[in-house]
Amino acid sequence: MHFVIPAKVIARKRDGHALSADEIAKFVDGYSQGAIPEYQMAAFAMAVCIRGMNLTETTVLTERMLKSGDRLQWSPGAPKVDKHSTGGLGDKVSLVLAPLLASCGLQVPMVSGRGLGITGGTLDKLQAIPGFRTNLTIDQIRSQVEAVGCVICGTTTEIAPADRKLYGLRDVTATVPSVPLITASILSKKLAESIDSLVLDVKFGSGTFMEDPTAARALAESLVQVAERLGVRTTALLSNMNQPLGYSIGHSLEVREAINALQGVGPEDLRILVLALGAELICRHDPSLDADQAKQKMDEKLKDGSAYEKFSEMVSAQGGDLSRDLPVCSSTQVLATRAGWLADVDGDGLGHAMIEIGGGRRLMDDVIDYAAGIELFAKTGEWIDKDQPIALVHAAPGKAATVTSQVREAFIIVEDEPSEFRLIADRVSIEDVG
Amino acid sequence: MHFVIPAKVIARKRDGHALSADEIAKFVDGYSQGAIPEYQMAAFAMAVCIRGMNLTETTVLTERMLKSGDRLQWSPGAPKVDKHSTGGLGDKVSLVLAPLLASCGLQVPMVSGRGLGITGGTLDKLQAIPGFRTNLTIDQIRSQVEAVGCVICGTTTEIAPADRKLYGLRDVTATVPSVPLITASILSKKLAESIDSLVLDVKFGSGTFMEDPTAARALAESLVQVAERLGVRTTALLSNMNQPLGYSIGHSLEVREAINALQGVGPEDLRILVLALGAELICRHDPSLDADQAKQKMDEKLKDGSAYEKFSEMVSAQGGDLSRDLPVCSSTQVLATRAGWLADVDGDGLGHAMIEIGGGRRLMDDVIDYAAGIELFAKTGEWIDKDQPIALVHAAPGKAATVTSQVREAFIIVEDEPSEFRLIADRVSIEDVG
Repeated sequence: MHFVIPAKVIARKRDGHALSADEIAKFVDGYSQGAIPEYQMAAFAMAVCIRGMNLTETTVLTERMLKSGDRLQWSPGAPKVDKHSTGGLGDKVSLVLAPLLASCGLQVPMVSGRGLGITGGTLDKLQAIPGFRTNLTIDQIRSQVEAVGCVICGTTTEIAPADRKLYGLRDVTATVPSVPLITASILSKKLAESIDSLVLDVKFGSGTFMEDPTAARALAESLVQVAERLGVRTTALLSNMNQPLGYSIGHSLEVREAINALQGVGPEDLRILVLALGAELICRHDPSLDADQAKQKMDEKLKDGSAYEKFSEMVSAQGGDLSRDLPVCSSTQVLATRAGWLADVDGDGLGHAMIEIGGGRRLMDDVIDYAAGIELFAKTGEWIDKDQPIALVHAAPGKAATVTSQVREAFIIVEDEPSEFRLIADRVSIEDVG
Repeated sequence: MHFVIPAKVIARKRDGHALSADEIAKFVDGYSQGAIPEYQMAAFAMAVCIRGMNLTETTVLTERMLKSGDRLQWSPGAPKVDKHSTGGLGDKVSLVLAPLLASCGLQVPMVSGRGLGITGGTLDKLQAIPGFRTNLTIDQIRSQVEAVGCVICGTTTEIAPADRKLYGLRDVTATVPSVPLITASILSKKLAESIDSLVLDVKFGSGTFMEDPTAARALAESLVQVAERLGVRTTALLSNMNQPLGYSIGHSLEVREAINALQGVGPEDLRILVLALGAELICRHDPSLDADQAKQKMDEKLKDGSAYEKFSEMVSAQGGDLSRDLPVCSSTQVLATRAGWLADVDGDGLGHAMIEIGGGRRLMDDVIDYAAGIELFAKTGEWIDKDQPIALVHAAPGKAATVTSQVREAFIIVEDEPSEFRLIADRVSIEDVG
């Protein structure tokens, strides 16, 4: 590519024009091959962030980022499916859903990026299990999926290297909140898994990427449309994170809660979301089942132990040792200082408390204390008495006291009974958006 | 500065907020000290390009870029003045105006950036004079101004280093066309000269930075307001470049034309613009003169040889040898192929022809052929006969033929007599804009 072209492409996006497929392809290819430097990509990403991209542009961007690397190759076999979540506090859905789907006969090559979120991602949580390995090669991923039925591991250097490069740049150039850039980042990695279908859990509310449900829906629509154009059957659920999922936040605590869910004794909201997401994929590949029947099938796999067995197989295959204790710090109770209805649990506030007690990251390089965490004793819509215990803070000695009031204030207690909390606010399929 | 702040500053500008003085200061200082990398500045510059900056932000930006380096220090003496032009084809005003003002008793420390324009800047033109040096130290600049009365030379590494760094980055990240960024770039360098007053020649029309007069006026207003806020008395003229200034384009040819003007026998449009710009500065420092009297004073200095004498002194002081011939290629005539009124001379078209014959730059590193150029034989508003010679192309053997039709087509010949060409379209002073 002649070196004057990048600035012209940037200028056209700066001025609000739609770029041609050729312009986007050459820009992304130039960037992933190192011919276009970081500063040109930074200016481009900011122009995209402010001016946006239409569906065709976003599709080309995604496709070029996908093609910057390799795709997984599969022998003929069970349908390959995956779930991606945009991340929220206490989100341990992947830990339950991947083995559950595998126990239902689907194969789940769940390759995740490192979480940019403050409380760590799925991979961080799994690393609370002694010995668990998340760095697998492409060959190891393939053989584990074919042998066990599921894997949860990190991306490799072969998968969407352009995204890996751009992901780090966006974080430091304030170009993260952009529907086309988020779409391309998520889908370039998911499509590299060569899956047949995908379900997306797009979060909105406190402590998520997209606080506003309208913005979350726009992202869901973009993801569904682009994934379908690139040949993967995809639906999205919009889920409400105005309170954390389940009763536990923190790495060891969340693994423990996920194991409970896998044994059929987990929190109800987690079960509802897992089954709703799972039904999207099971019904796709077994049209004889309706959503309720698919949920019932999954419920049985939770209750009869086969989902947990699949989880154990996966953990063993990746070197983890479930017989060893998960480290958890000693705990300090937090009491409510007033009576009332619990209207909201502020994920942002709890997220910052997690960072204070070492259970989250301030910087990418921060080391996480898997033993730190917060247990919540109430869900929105419940009545709280004065002096009722509302949370337990698990932290290293001396640290709990620094966050007690922060944790207490995250529980928004009001006089009037709040309206019912709807966990799943909406569903987006290609039929809805054309 | 804590390293997470830059992304927050970028995010605030991305979202269209006005930045605080502290945010801008820390960002610019971090960039010039190397703590903020090029990619963060690129994202910031793009956000500024699209979202803009208000007057207060632009003033702070300019001041911090100025303070990234040193300012010239002067002994008490004659008023220090300067002129800056935003650049246009055939613009040799500086070559005439600096020595002319010096011959009128003002001192002119004209420190110029390298032209980004395709046909080279003032420094390139002066380098057509055998031996002429444009790289002077700050001490050499000061002693020459105090001894001779004027200097025209390049910036030094001590002057506005933040601008030097940003200037190169903007060129390759499509962040050049931004009023606040242009304002800060121009004024950080001019204010480092510690001048008492400044006049700006803001060009509009074909082949200039700001083709549209409204955009040019907005830039002029920003420049006047920011310079005045930072303590330099400033006015701006808006000049029309819908035809080149004078009759010559090309390095040797333009020096020859400037020398003619310095001897009182140059083209009329060049004389008018030089005197109008000069009068702004002379009247400022001698309130007993009105504009017409100031122009008359300058006219005398042109006619009695003192302006040219000052030019000779300046050239000698900088090592140039005016006794040696200026190199000029042999020439080829261009004839009009139809009769009619000359309505426009397209600077863009002539600029590209200049590049073809080696008299301009395609890339920053291209070597310019000082001997190449184009002489124009007609001005807009004149009647042209069929087969009348309208231009002479001076080029290396074989090259003239490649641009003959391009040069011919730059002369826009029409049937109806065009309205009068107004060289100076407007004047902007702080009284006009508050």
